[in-house]
Amino acid sequence: MTVLVFLDPQFPAGRLADATVPQLSVLDQGVTRGDGIFESALYKGAVVRKLEAHLARLAVSADTCDLTLPETAAWRAAIATAVSAYDAAAPSEEAVVKLVATRGAEGAQAGTCWVTVSPGPALGRAQREAGLSVLLLDRGYDSAVAERAPWLLMGAKTLSYAVNMAALRHAHANGADDVIFISSDDIVLEGPTSTVLLAIREGETKRLLTPTLETGILPGTTQGAIFAAAKAAGWELGYGPLAPIDLMDADSVWLVSSIRLLAPINSIDGTPIARDPELHAELTAMVDAIA
Amino acid sequence: MTVLVFLDPQFPAGRLADATVPQLSVLDQGVTRGDGIFESALYKGAVVRKLEAHLARLAVSADTCDLTLPETAAWRAAIATAVSAYDAAAPSEEAVVKLVATRGAEGAQAGTCWVTVSPGPALGRAQREAGLSVLLLDRGYDSAVAERAPWLLMGAKTLSYAVNMAALRHAHANGADDVIFISSDDIVLEGPTSTVLLAIREGETKRLLTPTLETGILPGTTQGAIFAAAKAAGWELGYGPLAPIDLMDADSVWLVSSIRLLAPINSIDGTPIARDPELHAELTAMVDAIA
Repeated sequence: MTVLVFLDPQFPAGRLADATVPQLSVLDQGVTRGDGIFESALYKGAVVRKLEAHLARLAVSADTCDLTLPETAAWRAAIATAVSAYDAAAPSEEAVVKLVATRGAEGAQAGTCWVTVSPGPALGRAQREAGLSVLLLDRGYDSAVAERAPWLLMGAKTLSYAVNMAALRHAHANGADDVIFISSDDIVLEGPTSTVLLAIREGETKRLLTPTLETGILPGTTQGAIFAAAKAAGWELGYGPLAPIDLMDADSVWLVSSIRLLAPINSIDGTPIARDPELHAELTAMVDAIA
Repeated sequence: MTVLVFLDPQFPAGRLADATVPQLSVLDQGVTRGDGIFESALYKGAVVRKLEAHLARLAVSADTCDLTLPETAAWRAAIATAVSAYDAAAPSEEAVVKLVATRGAEGAQAGTCWVTVSPGPALGRAQREAGLSVLLLDRGYDSAVAERAPWLLMGAKTLSYAVNMAALRHAHANGADDVIFISSDDIVLEGPTSTVLLAIREGETKRLLTPTLETGILPGTTQGAIFAAAKAAGWELGYGPLAPIDLMDADSVWLVSSIRLLAPINSIDGTPIARDPELHAELTAMVDAIA
C-alpha cells in the first residue's frame, strides 16, 4: 500500500492522491527524459531518518540539474501529511519515504513534485544480516570526469537510473546480489544504490574509509551519518581514492544506504572477503541510532 | 494537441486515452528509474517515416535492457489508431510519433507501452535552414566502453536522458544550439539527440562519413537511410573513428535525426566550419525522399 501526496501551491499541506490510479502525465519529462531527481528516506519509529540530509541533497541535485524546487517547508508539509496518512492506513515497522521532483511537461512553468510512502522491502532487511555477494563492474567513467564535465550530472541523484538498474540485473543474472562500480582507471566508486564503506583495524585503532567525492560519486547520507557517529566513538576516518585491492584487504566492507542501511559484503567477484563481527555490531548500533 | 494510445491486450487496435489528464502511475519504473526505452519518428504526408527501422531499433533497445515488448503488430495497430485520431483532430504538416515502453510498476507482470502523436517542433524545422552552432562536450566514456561493459546500455535508446538534456542546456547557456559528444579518448561520438555526418569532396568523388557504432553510439535510423540513398547516388561511404579535426576539415558537417532531419553545422566551439550548399541540397533531397 502506497500513500501519495503531491506538492501543490493550492494545498499547503500537500494534496493527497490515490496511488493505485494514474496520476502522472505521459508527457512529463520525468518519464520521457528521466529528467528529474529523487531521494529515498527510511521511516521508522515515527521518524523520517536523516530528513535534513535528504532535503539538503535534494537541493544539491536540483541545483546540478537546473531544477527549481518548491520551498523546503512545502516538502516538510507534504511528508508530514504522507506519513500521517500511511500510519493511519497501513502502518509497518519500516517504510520508504520517496521524494521526487521532475522537470514537468515540456514547456511547463513548474515541475511535478510528490512524496510517496511505501512498505520497506523485506529483501533489504534480510541482507543486513545475511550479507552480500558483489561484482565489481566498470562504470565507464574515469575518476576525474566529474570535475571536467559538469553536464554529466555526477553527484546528482537523477531519475535516469537505467544503467544502475541494468548493473543490478547483470549481477543477479550472474548469481551476485549487488555491484560496486569501478572507474575506468580502477578506482572504487559506489554501488548502484549505495555507498561503499570499509574498515581496517590497526592495533587498537579502528579506521573507517569511503571513496572520495572527487570521483563523482553521490554523497551518501548514511555514510555521512555513520562517519559522524564513528568519529564521536573514536574511530579514525579516511577518504579514498581506494583501489579494488583495498576492498580485498579490508577487515570488513559494507554497502550502506538509507533503506537497507548497513549490509556487509561476503564476497567480491566470487572471492570471500573478511568480515569482522565486532566492527559490524558496533557500526550497526551507530546506524540504529541515526535519527 | 497530443493524441495518446496505450498498447493494451484488451484493445487490439490500442486504447485511446486523454493525454491532457494523468495516465501514468507515479510508481512506474519509467519515471522512478528512467527504466524504459523510446523511439521518435516523423509523421508527414500520411506516412510514419522509417517505421520499420524504428520498430527494429526499439526491439534492439528492449533486448539490451531485458525488456519484453508487445508484438510488433500491436505497435503498428496502436500507431495507426494514433495517427488516424491525430489527423481527425488536429492535422499538421509534420508530427512526432513517439513510442515508449517502460518496465512498468515495481513487481508488475508487464511493462507500460504507449504511442503519442504531437505537432512537430518549429525550432527543429528552422534549424534545417539556418544551421547550428555546436559545442564539443566530453561524454566521459572512452570509445571502447561499449564492448567491455554491456550494463552501460550503450546503443540502447533508454528513457534515462538526463545527461543528454543537461548537455543541451549547457550548450544553450553558452550561446550554442547543440552538442557533439566526444569520448574521453578524443573520438567523435554523437549528438545528445542526433547522429553526426560529414562530407568530403575529393575531385569528383563525394564521401559521406559517420562515427563507427563500435564507439557505443546509437545506430541512427536517419543516418542509415541517408547512407542507403547516398550509396545509390554513387557516394562513397565511410565509418569512423573520427577525430574532432576531421569535423573541422570536412566540407560539411550535419547533425541528423528523425524529426529535425538534416541540420547543417555552422560552427564548432565558436569556430566557423565549411558548408557546401550543393552537398547540402543533394542530401536534403535524399532525406525528403525517405519513406
